[in-house]
Amino acid sequence: MKFTLKHTDGTARTGAVTTDHGSFQTPAFMPVGTQGTVKAVSPASLEATGAEIMLSNTYHLYLRPGSRILENAGGLHKFISWPHPILTDSGGYQVFSLSDLRKIDESGVTFRSHLDGSSHAFTPESVVDIQRSIGSDITMVLDECAPFPCEREYAATSNDLTIRWARRAQVRFASTEPRYGHHQALFAIVQGSTYHDIRRESATALTDLNFEGYAIGGLAVGEPAPEMYDIVALCCEILPEEKPRYLMGVGTPENLLEAIDRGVDMFDCVMPTRNGRNAMFFTKHGSLAITNARFKEDFTPVDESCGCYACTHFSRAYLRHLFQAREILGLELASVHNIFFYQWLMQSAREAIGRDMYASWKCEMIASLRQQVPVLS
Amino acid sequence: MKFTLKHTDGTARTGAVTTDHGSFQTPAFMPVGTQGTVKAVSPASLEATGAEIMLSNTYHLYLRPGSRILENAGGLHKFISWPHPILTDSGGYQVFSLSDLRKIDESGVTFRSHLDGSSHAFTPESVVDIQRSIGSDITMVLDECAPFPCEREYAATSNDLTIRWARRAQVRFASTEPRYGHHQALFAIVQGSTYHDIRRESATALTDLNFEGYAIGGLAVGEPAPEMYDIVALCCEILPEEKPRYLMGVGTPENLLEAIDRGVDMFDCVMPTRNGRNAMFFTKHGSLAITNARFKEDFTPVDESCGCYACTHFSRAYLRHLFQAREILGLELASVHNIFFYQWLMQSAREAIGRDMYASWKCEMIASLRQQVPVLS
Repeated sequence: MKFTLKHTDGTARTGAVTTDHGSFQTPAFMPVGTQGTVKAVSPASLEATGAEIMLSNTYHLYLRPGSRILENAGGLHKFISWPHPILTDSGGYQVFSLSDLRKIDESGVTFRSHLDGSSHAFTPESVVDIQRSIGSDITMVLDECAPFPCEREYAATSNDLTIRWARRAQVRFASTEPRYGHHQALFAIVQGSTYHDIRRESATALTDLNFEGYAIGGLAVGEPAPEMYDIVALCCEILPEEKPRYLMGVGTPENLLEAIDRGVDMFDCVMPTRNGRNAMFFTKHGSLAITNARFKEDFTPVDESCGCYACTHFSRAYLRHLFQAREILGLELASVHNIFFYQWLMQSAREAIGRDMYASWKCEMIASLRQQVPVLS
Repeated sequence: MKFTLKHTDGTARTGAVTTDHGSFQTPAFMPVGTQGTVKAVSPASLEATGAEIMLSNTYHLYLRPGSRILENAGGLHKFISWPHPILTDSGGYQVFSLSDLRKIDESGVTFRSHLDGSSHAFTPESVVDIQRSIGSDITMVLDECAPFPCEREYAATSNDLTIRWARRAQVRFASTEPRYGHHQALFAIVQGSTYHDIRRESATALTDLNFEGYAIGGLAVGEPAPEMYDIVALCCEILPEEKPRYLMGVGTPENLLEAIDRGVDMFDCVMPTRNGRNAMFFTKHGSLAITNARFKEDFTPVDESCGCYACTHFSRAYLRHLFQAREILGLELASVHNIFFYQWLMQSAREAIGRDMYASWKCEMIASLRQQVPVLS
């Protein structure tokens, strides 16, 4: 994996990450394909949104279909027919948010599957092994994602463990080979809750370990947005300039723009697809709840200026009808539109950075995003 | 609308129907888009299956979104972004199968909506008017779809009413204009349950009324297949050679091949999409229940020889995974594959007729369809 820093504008930056499955431009938004598919979106439709990399989940793939099937399929890219880059998270977040009866100790974490209650264990090493079976281009270390709010002592202890786990993951990663002939990269995850000194310690220690890239984890878990932005800024100051920085699980369009301003290169979030399936369409003029009665006879597209399949073919009235009638096509079109919008937002941010106009562009865009969508009267 | 009979082979025939929204080759299979979308399939994906015409439902569209919205949208083609031919059924079948408290008399039928219990009335005239608002290329007369089994007297009385309704529909159709500048055709519907003499009466009386095309209704409602085939043969003998013949709501691949053999030109059925959503994939070697454990590590496509998006991109193991994980993409891929298969079957039938080999091709194909799908061991 190669990261090329192209241009900086203040602390915002553009670049490109090159993997054996192709490149993606940064800042990049990665649509989430938890179980090996972005929900309601085919790989062909996902390509058409402009997405250049997708994310999938080690925890979910490990439970179903399982490593053996992924290995026999020749890896996740082939299994799901996505020939472009894939990043997998480590499962740390899912173990702490989804599974029951988890028990954490120095060796790793034991948990019960949210699917059938069966018992499983993740260690830093086993999570590397699973991601070798998955064959993701970018893999993540197992971390403990501390809850919010979190006592200072818990955050410190947890972060120390996460750093020890990162070292173990790195050792395992170095002593194992990719299974499918393409290179895999390993990213570490900065933790430390909202404690600045612990975050600093974490970022510094992990930087010293010289990973290929760095994630900022444990945010967007309930803390106020200004606190999140402060932590992001603090981490980006410490993390090495020449490595990609990935803010995990974030966020709203506004969150993304603020984080880009502070030096983040990569994002993932279920928001465009999950909100889409709940009939919410993002636009640069604010968001639409398409089931609202005011769209009943609105024959304009969700966004006149949007080039997605939904906006170039269908009206708000039709999209509303699909949701009213509980038609599956509504879920697909909303997901496609929202992912396209997120990609458009990233491209626009990259262009603004390239023009050295990021700060003013961001202010205008955020003001626009906060608008109510204008409606035909 | 223009029907061109191209070639006959025994009583099987090929042809083409030309509408202001383009042509479709016959025998034709029309995927069902009940509420203005083929379930889980976008118009772009539907085009890619080879479908040249789709069906939608007057009853459903009348209840939701309603005629006014369709008129303001400029008709159904624009509303749903399907620029090719559309046929709408009259709503007769849905009134009798879906709605509560229906009451039928000479004037028409009153019923309660299956959505909210509200009261509505359909008359032969109002159903023409609704289809004028929809703007379908081919519209159907309101009929009474008699239940099966059905007393002889009920069938005779009901059929007489259906013929009187067909006349009234024809008068209304002749005295009204298309709303959107494209021609609409009106088809009559032969009824008469499984009584040969009533069917003959019905087909003869409707032929005398000189409609642009004829449907055979009231079949595939529970009667044994051989009885259905006999009725189809009997109707096709009477119906005029130079008009298209449409067997409503039928059926399995085998049903279609038998009906083509007897002279049918057009079909519609929810089977490819409904069965698809229930994880059933049709192939020329029989059907697959994709959730079956034997497909868990089967990395071959559903059908090696199939050119659909699902078969050219995904394995049985992945499709099984999508259904196991309850992913929406599974519903889309199964629907796309099954519609593609039905289109392939129609094209193959047309080719066999063109080679004057229909009878022997049909026997071989039916034997193949009845096979168990071979599985990797």
